[in-house]
Amino acid sequence: MPISKKIANSISRSSWIRKMFETGIVLKRQYGAANVYDFSLGNPDLPSPPELNKILVEEACRSGAFVHGYMPNAGYVETRQAVADMLSRDSGLPFTKENIVMTCGAAGAINVFLKSVLDPGDEVVVIAPYFTEYNFYIENHGGAIIISDTNGELLPDLADLGKKIGKKTKVVVINSPNNPSGRVYSERLLKQIGDLLQQKSRRYGHPIYLLADEPYKKIIYDESAYHSPLKYYRNTILATSFSKDLSLAGERIGFLAVSPLIEDNKDIINAATFCNRILGFINANALMQRVVKHVLDAGVDVAVYKQRRDFLYSALVDIGYDVIKPEGTFYMFPRSPIPDDVAFVKALQGKMILTTPGTGFHRPGYFRIAFCVGDEFIKGSIKGFETVFKEIRA
Amino acid sequence: MPISKKIANSISRSSWIRKMFETGIVLKRQYGAANVYDFSLGNPDLPSPPELNKILVEEACRSGAFVHGYMPNAGYVETRQAVADMLSRDSGLPFTKENIVMTCGAAGAINVFLKSVLDPGDEVVVIAPYFTEYNFYIENHGGAIIISDTNGELLPDLADLGKKIGKKTKVVVINSPNNPSGRVYSERLLKQIGDLLQQKSRRYGHPIYLLADEPYKKIIYDESAYHSPLKYYRNTILATSFSKDLSLAGERIGFLAVSPLIEDNKDIINAATFCNRILGFINANALMQRVVKHVLDAGVDVAVYKQRRDFLYSALVDIGYDVIKPEGTFYMFPRSPIPDDVAFVKALQGKMILTTPGTGFHRPGYFRIAFCVGDEFIKGSIKGFETVFKEIRA
Repeated sequence: MPISKKIANSISRSSWIRKMFETGIVLKRQYGAANVYDFSLGNPDLPSPPELNKILVEEACRSGAFVHGYMPNAGYVETRQAVADMLSRDSGLPFTKENIVMTCGAAGAINVFLKSVLDPGDEVVVIAPYFTEYNFYIENHGGAIIISDTNGELLPDLADLGKKIGKKTKVVVINSPNNPSGRVYSERLLKQIGDLLQQKSRRYGHPIYLLADEPYKKIIYDESAYHSPLKYYRNTILATSFSKDLSLAGERIGFLAVSPLIEDNKDIINAATFCNRILGFINANALMQRVVKHVLDAGVDVAVYKQRRDFLYSALVDIGYDVIKPEGTFYMFPRSPIPDDVAFVKALQGKMILTTPGTGFHRPGYFRIAFCVGDEFIKGSIKGFETVFKEIRA
Repeated sequence: MPISKKIANSISRSSWIRKMFETGIVLKRQYGAANVYDFSLGNPDLPSPPELNKILVEEACRSGAFVHGYMPNAGYVETRQAVADMLSRDSGLPFTKENIVMTCGAAGAINVFLKSVLDPGDEVVVIAPYFTEYNFYIENHGGAIIISDTNGELLPDLADLGKKIGKKTKVVVINSPNNPSGRVYSERLLKQIGDLLQQKSRRYGHPIYLLADEPYKKIIYDESAYHSPLKYYRNTILATSFSKDLSLAGERIGFLAVSPLIEDNKDIINAATFCNRILGFINANALMQRVVKHVLDAGVDVAVYKQRRDFLYSALVDIGYDVIKPEGTFYMFPRSPIPDDVAFVKALQGKMILTTPGTGFHRPGYFRIAFCVGDEFIKGSIKGFETVFKEIRA
């Protein structure tokens, strides 16, 4: 076999997702992209904010020696300082530039952190439904994935979480606002999770890190709903990106932030900077580092996503779908009207509607709608959602 | 321990390089950066070419939906096509966009390729002196590193290379123009390496891939000296970047190219695209992908590097240093006048001259001078090189 057995196996495991993706391509080719309602991808469709465009042009105009050269592997000092100031403001904690590594998006940040802390066999607990790329990120660095369940509200089941954390647990991953459910963790829930991890860390004699994957932090429909996990548990690490709040997904810019309250935070940052280098990232790209430091308070127009959420939610509920109204993200995660979510998603394809089955997030019986697409697609799809709902229940 | 044992060990192994780096920082702080001759880093000091700056501003001015969004994980179709056209022209082989993955520099390309093909215990042969980050890249993906020697000319010793290739060998890495030696492989040598790998592949019943790491391909002092390994061995993969020829090191843009002559080239590209995704790169950054496709024929002013090479080479030879004149790159790799290269490099530090000991490239007894620094530093350093040479031999 020319390629690695593990990779060949991973590719074949994810081949049905690929097949669905390819079905979408075939449909678009056959019927025209304008006639396919593609809700399968989390690729933000809102333009980046104007203040970002302005500063990007200014930075692009700079020329001369080292303008596009290497900087310290952790990132430009000024960018890390700006990120630290923002986090200090948000969390009340004394972040400095020494707590930050600029990364190739949140995916880069997660890989860098996991490589920094995992020894072979260490366990990483994730909470389903979850972004299943976590499986690969954890496997990349020799970790074992342990899956905890959510309750009927698609929020962490604390009793189950407690059972899944053992002496080999090194990291617990949370993702709020959540992909795919759109749920946002309350202050109370974060406090409960923090207390649980504190108690388990004490019991097992080593810190259990809470890795908060937060790329949707600013895509939130009631701003007061977001609370930083940094406040409720000292061993917290943030992995995030500007992919969604600034619509920069393809530019690969984000950061890893290690709470200054973590006893060994310097060792972790040192290891993360090293891993950022040896994994081949070297550093987050220079130009976007220089751009984002100026627009940390900017964001895309979330009101547009909110309007879509409200419209789509009402329309689906009217049809009869069972769905929890998302509090953030641009995802909706209704229950599939039949237990077999893959079959249901296939039925939707018959009406040119592309969605992702819950099975793809380790939560069968649901399906994900990514509504980061034009209003015309959302409006145009409702009839199809209705027809399939009625036909499949008949 | 808060961090991974393996990472802690890797960091401590590389700690003496770090110590030298920190010595440099201390010297600069104490005496001012203008008074320290820092030849330790391969960070190109020439500005990016004007045609790149022009197109960068044009691309930065574009705004709207998806301008900075995700594209296929392998990269924009147009960029891959442009790279394929360039490679077809250079090599005479029928490259298509399906043979290319755009990557986060050459380091990203190498990591992606190694993850794609290595099974645990597979061996990767490198040729010393070599860029020692290869050690980490190979370890990242479970490979075992095997080191082959060069001869007195710092060129591959084919007899030794033949001995180092065994039934577990999956990849042989070459790097021409070479960091740190500046040597460029001749057509004859590439043909010999190709023949050897052909014979070994046949013997062991599986293809041995030749991974050519070529970021210095265009930093070459006699253009006719470069020959593409693609022509001399079918199972060749290129990993390269625009870091040096366009002075874009911090922007992290490069590519992996899989020879269309490789029987399983589609499987390899498929795996590489997947690994680019799961390692957290996702895709090479959007903006630089759009920029480089327009300036594939551009380059920095190599004449500047050539003038420096000529000046520095003459000056060092006049002093009495034993040094092979580099045919490419912006590195020079003289013999240390005493066997202990680390001690010699420390002695140079005493004259505010920062270089890297050959030990850092797995070739003790030499030291590397990176002459991607202003002429004034090169000229200013000569006296120090002379004083230390005389003192240490006395």
